[in-house]
Amino acid sequence: MDPDAVAKAFVEHYYSTFDANRAGLATLYQESSMLTFEGQKIQGSQNIVAKLTSLPFQQCKHSITTVDCQPSGPAGGMLVFVSGNLQLSGEQHALKFSQMFHLMPTPQSSFYVLNDIFRLNYA
Amino acid sequence: MDPDAVAKAFVEHYYSTFDANRAGLATLYQESSMLTFEGQKIQGSQNIVAKLTSLPFQQCKHSITTVDCQPSGPAGGMLVFVSGNLQLSGEQHALKFSQMFHLMPTPQSSFYVLNDIFRLNYA
Repeated sequence: MDPDAVAKAFVEHYYSTFDANRAGLATLYQESSMLTFEGQKIQGSQNIVAKLTSLPFQQCKHSITTVDCQPSGPAGGMLVFVSGNLQLSGEQHALKFSQMFHLMPTPQSSFYVLNDIFRLNYA
Repeated sequence: MDPDAVAKAFVEHYYSTFDANRAGLATLYQESSMLTFEGQKIQGSQNIVAKLTSLPFQQCKHSITTVDCQPSGPAGGMLVFVSGNLQLSGEQHALKFSQMFHLMPTPQSSFYVLNDIFRLNYA
C-alpha cells in the first residue's frame, strides 16, 4: 500500500462527495470522530454531518492544491494535510482553505476519519 | 491538563525558538519524527534541524493567527493545527502558512513532535 496514493484517493473521494452529496460523508466518520470547523468542535458522525449539511451554501466546488501525508504512529493511522480553494456558487472569488485529516484503519481494511480540522485562510 | 492550553504553550515555545535559535528545536524531535516541508519529507531530529537551519533566510518572525487542537487517539497524542504569517527580514510582505504537529507524550510528562507538516499558502 502506497500511503501517498491512499491519501490522494481519500482526498478525491472526500471532496467529490462533499461537493455532490454532503450527507454521504456520514460513512467516513464514527462516534469517536472529531471535527473542528473554523474553531468550533463537533463530535460524532451524526453531529459532524449535521454541521456540514447546515453550512450556509447549497453548492460548492473544492479544488485541491496540495496533499501531504505521513504515518501517524504504530496504530496504523495516517495524517493527511490538504490545501486548496473552495468556490461557492454565486460568489466571484474562491476561498482558500487548509484542512487536516487523521485517518484510522477499520477492520474492513478501509479508513475512517478520527480527526478533522478545517480552516479558511483569509487573505 | 487543558489540551488547548498545552497546544497554545507548545505553539508559543516552538515559534519563539524557531525565530530566536532554530537549532534549539532539536530537542522537540526524536529519531522517529517526520517533517514534510513544502512537500519534502525528512526523518529524524538531526535531519529535520539540518533542514530548518539551512532555510535560505537568517531572521524571521512567526505571527500566529489560529491554533486548533484535538486528541489524536488512545496513545495520548495531540494534533495541533496552526495558521499564521511568516515575516522574513528584508521582505516587504509576510508569507501566510499552515502547519500541523502531532505531539506524542514522553515518559517525562512532556511532548515530542512525531509529525510536522508545513505549507506556505500562496495567494
